[in-house]
Amino acid sequence: MLIAEPLQKAIEELSKLPSIGNKTAQRLALHLLKTDKDNVDLLVKSLIELKEKIRFCSVCFNISVEDTCDICKSQKRNRAQICVVEDASDVIAIEKTNEYNGLYHVLGGVLNPLEGVMVDSLKIKELMARLNSGEIKEIILALNPNSEGDATSVYLINSLKDYPVKISRIARGLPIGGDLEFADSATIGRAFIGRISVQ
Amino acid sequence: MLIAEPLQKAIEELSKLPSIGNKTAQRLALHLLKTDKDNVDLLVKSLIELKEKIRFCSVCFNISVEDTCDICKSQKRNRAQICVVEDASDVIAIEKTNEYNGLYHVLGGVLNPLEGVMVDSLKIKELMARLNSGEIKEIILALNPNSEGDATSVYLINSLKDYPVKISRIARGLPIGGDLEFADSATIGRAFIGRISVQ
Repeated sequence: MLIAEPLQKAIEELSKLPSIGNKTAQRLALHLLKTDKDNVDLLVKSLIELKEKIRFCSVCFNISVEDTCDICKSQKRNRAQICVVEDASDVIAIEKTNEYNGLYHVLGGVLNPLEGVMVDSLKIKELMARLNSGEIKEIILALNPNSEGDATSVYLINSLKDYPVKISRIARGLPIGGDLEFADSATIGRAFIGRISVQ
Repeated sequence: MLIAEPLQKAIEELSKLPSIGNKTAQRLALHLLKTDKDNVDLLVKSLIELKEKIRFCSVCFNISVEDTCDICKSQKRNRAQICVVEDASDVIAIEKTNEYNGLYHVLGGVLNPLEGVMVDSLKIKELMARLNSGEIKEIILALNPNSEGDATSVYLINSLKDYPVKISRIARGLPIGGDLEFADSATIGRAFIGRISVQ
């Protein structure tokens, strides 16, 4: 017996999602088959609205319901700081900390020539354009601590050196709750380089 | 900043799926935001069709596009055997082995009084009804080897003892590729009880 065609089709589409393999997709599809139609309708509606209602902010390229996102419009935020991140998910992660109150700029990726991500694929020109207004005093680079993130940070530091802005990079070091004994040497090394004087 | 409402809604709905937590749901939603609208449309369409086109076979309660499933209609299958399984996913798993050519009966669960699954919630009456035709000669119990599956098997064996059918249970023992040294003692014990004479 082949799996009934509509089920097969749903499994195929679900398994295209990241981190969903064929077995998980099959479990999800069979679960949806068994649940109330109302629940599946809610899911379907939320996916349709996700694509219809959400766009990218024309200023910072964060996700937004309107042309400009809530953060870019807010007068309560520190409009002299821009935090540069790779992805909209990084904005969510940083917002959850309640430690940052400035603006954002979502690059939409990091430089990765092997995968064809070059300078022009990222929103770097748009970042430069925002600096021309003169309102921005500090750029905080918050890219992921890996080789592509580092390469992109170095590229941005070089490109921004003629602008009258302070440039900083978020700290690397031991994660809170981490264990020195089990940390990798690159992390411990960075924690030494970035040590903060306390007295 | 709160997460934009349509995104929040999609994350909520996705995280209702089994084995999808909040973080995975967020990753999936952000992935869908970035992919082409065509791909999301395909996914949405497949989910709608899954619910619209698939129903449960009126004979064996396996998933089916028509009122009676392909297996129940087929004249190439051995119509004297019924394999009793918990779920439609078990039918798919057994069909993949190509070792079984009889019919199926999907119970829709196993007895689990703590979760409110009693005899009436399962398709046990319907199984008895199928036996009344006299066409069936063997019932093969292929429920999962755990306490609920075992309890359900015992219940079925008792309920079926007045019917003139052979009842068997699929073997328990060491899984192919498994290692005796690392198998749990219940499995090794079962493998001894179920030993097969070879000479």
